Amino acid sequence: MSELISPITLLDDHGFWRRLFVKREDLLPKYFGGNKVRILASIFSEIDIQDITRVVSFGSRHSNHIRVLAAMMLERDIPCDLIILDDESKKSLAEGNELLATLYNANIHFCPSNEAHEYIDSHLCNLKKQGEKALFIPGGGHTVDGANGYVLAVDEIIDQTRGLDIDCIFLPTGTGTTQAGLIFGSKLRNWNVKIIGVTVARSPERCKKEIRSLLNELNKRYYTQFFFNDDDMEVVDNSEKPYGAIDKDIVDTIRAVAKSDGIVLDPIYNAKTFWKTERMIKDKEYSSCKNILYLNTGGTPNIFTKNFSEALRQ
Amino acid sequence: MSELISPITLLDDHGFWRRLFVKREDLLPKYFGGNKVRILASIFSEIDIQDITRVVSFGSRHSNHIRVLAAMMLERDIPCDLIILDDESKKSLAEGNELLATLYNANIHFCPSNEAHEYIDSHLCNLKKQGEKALFIPGGGHTVDGANGYVLAVDEIIDQTRGLDIDCIFLPTGTGTTQAGLIFGSKLRNWNVKIIGVTVARSPERCKKEIRSLLNELNKRYYTQFFFNDDDMEVVDNSEKPYGAIDKDIVDTIRAVAKSDGIVLDPIYNAKTFWKTERMIKDKEYSSCKNILYLNTGGTPNIFTKNFSEALRQ
Repeated sequence: MSELISPITLLDDHGFWRRLFVKREDLLPKYFGGNKVRILASIFSEIDIQDITRVVSFGSRHSNHIRVLAAMMLERDIPCDLIILDDESKKSLAEGNELLATLYNANIHFCPSNEAHEYIDSHLCNLKKQGEKALFIPGGGHTVDGANGYVLAVDEIIDQTRGLDIDCIFLPTGTGTTQAGLIFGSKLRNWNVKIIGVTVARSPERCKKEIRSLLNELNKRYYTQFFFNDDDMEVVDNSEKPYGAIDKDIVDTIRAVAKSDGIVLDPIYNAKTFWKTERMIKDKEYSSCKNILYLNTGGTPNIFTKNFSEALRQ
Repeated sequence: MSELISPITLLDDHGFWRRLFVKREDLLPKYFGGNKVRILASIFSEIDIQDITRVVSFGSRHSNHIRVLAAMMLERDIPCDLIILDDESKKSLAEGNELLATLYNANIHFCPSNEAHEYIDSHLCNLKKQGEKALFIPGGGHTVDGANGYVLAVDEIIDQTRGLDIDCIFLPTGTGTTQAGLIFGSKLRNWNVKIIGVTVARSPERCKKEIRSLLNELNKRYYTQFFFNDDDMEVVDNSEKPYGAIDKDIVDTIRAVAKSDGIVLDPIYNAKTFWKTERMIKDKEYSSCKNILYLNTGGTPNIFTKNFSEALRQ
C-alpha cells in the first residue's frame, strides 16, 4: 500500500476563504484513483484470499466502488460479480465506471434497487450451492476495514500539511466510510481538525448513524475507548442536489474549478459537494475554518456519460 | 510550470525484460494529464497572450491536444475554436476528449479531413476580417516551443531515475514533438539514452522528417550545433495497428496492464504502443536495453467512447 499516495495542491483564491487545499485522491496512481482505492486496498490487506473463489458486491451505476473492486479482483484472478442497482442501465452501452468494470472482466448483473436485498441473498445462496466460496463486500466498501484505509491516510495528510494549519476537512459523504476513518484517525493522532461531510445520497441522520457504528468498531479494533460526541460527526445536508442528478450548478462548478485550478471534479460526488462547500463558506458558515482541506474523492469516469454529455447541451 | 511533475513507477515483471519503469504523464495533475499538458504549457509560457482575442487549432476526435488546449484557454479567458477533422462525429453526442473540450467552452467545428487546410485558412481569414487577433496553434502542439516542454522534462526524468541506469525510452510518436524534445534534451544533458518512438498515425519516414526539422529549430533556439544522425531518430513502424482502430490486441493489452500494474492505458496511443513494445522485447529486439522507461503519454478520456465500449463486447 506504500505506493498509494496522492498529492495535495493549494487552490487558487476562490474569493471566500483564506486558503483552500485539495487532497487529490483522484490522482491515486491505480485503477483511475479515488477514495475507493484506499478503502478496498485496506479491506483486502486484511483478508486471506486463498480460499475465496468469487467476490460479490453491488452499487449504483455511478459507483466508483464497483470499478475499483473489479480492477482489484482482476489483479488477484478472482471472478467478480457486480450487481448494479438500476434496471435501466442494462439497456444501454456500458459507460463510465460500468465500462471499466466490464473491461476488468467483472460479471455485471442488473437489478432494480428495491429488489436488491432479495437478489443478492439469492445470488449468494446459489453460489454456495455450486460449491463457490464467495466473499461478499458491502456496497461502497462500507466496513471497518474499509474505514481503516482513511484512519491510515490521516498520517499521510498530517505529513503533507505540516505548517499549513489545516483546521477543517470537507468531503462528500455517501456511506460514511471515508469520514469515519478520518474522524477516528485524527482522534488517534490527536490532530485537532474538524471533519465535515456533505451528503451525496443519504440523510445526515442516516450518515451519522453509520459513522457512529464504524467509530465504535474502530474503537474495538484499536483497543481504544475514544468518546465521540455529535459535534465530532458533522454531516451537512445537501439533499437539494439529489444523487445522480446533474444540473446547471454542477456543470458550472466543474467548469469553474477546471478554469481556476485545472482540476476535473466528477459530477456525482465532488462537484455537488464542492458547490455546497463554496456556498457555505460564502454564507460565512464555519467561519472559524481558515485553512480548509477539500478531500477530492475522485470519480472522474462519471464525467464520461450520456447524462453528463446531455447536461452540457442545456 | 513547477507543478507539472508526474511520478515514475516500476512495473511488475512482464517476463521479457529486466526492468520496466513507467513515466506516468497520465497523472500530470491538470486537465486530465498527458503529454499535451507539458507541450501546451511550454507553448503558452513563450507567448504574450495580451493581444490575442482568439485561439484556433485542430485535431482528430481522439486528440488529447484539443482537450488540453480548450482547458488552458478557458483558464486564460480566451475563446477557442477547435476544428475536429471528422465529419461523422458531429452527428453523435460528444464523448471522450470532445466532451471535455465542450465542457471547457471550446467552439467545436467539424470538417472532413481532406478539406482541413481550406477550412482552417478560410476560418482564420474570416476571423481577421472580423477584427479578431487569432493565434493558430498547429495540431498536436507540433512546434519548437511545444517540443521544448520535453527538452525541459528530461531534467525531471534524469532527477527521478538516478541510479536506475535507464538505457532507453519507448513512447508513442504521432507528430514527433515529444520525441524531438526528449532527443534534444538528452543530448543537451549529455545523457546517453536511446529514444525509441513507435508510430501511432504517420509513417516512420514522415515522423523522422518532422523530428529532424524540430531538432534543427531546437539547435537554433539553444544556440547549439548538435549533430543528429539517423540512429538518434529511432522510429518503429506500427502501421499494422491503424490510427483509431481498436482491436482485440488493444483491449487485451489494456486489460493486462490494468491486471499487472493497475495502470489504465488509452486505446488510441499507448495501448498499441505498449503492445508493440512488448512484442519487440519478446522478439529480442533492442536487446541491449536492460532498463526501459516507457513514457505513458496519457489520453485516458479515449477509453470512454462508444467505439471502445463496443470493442469490449466482441
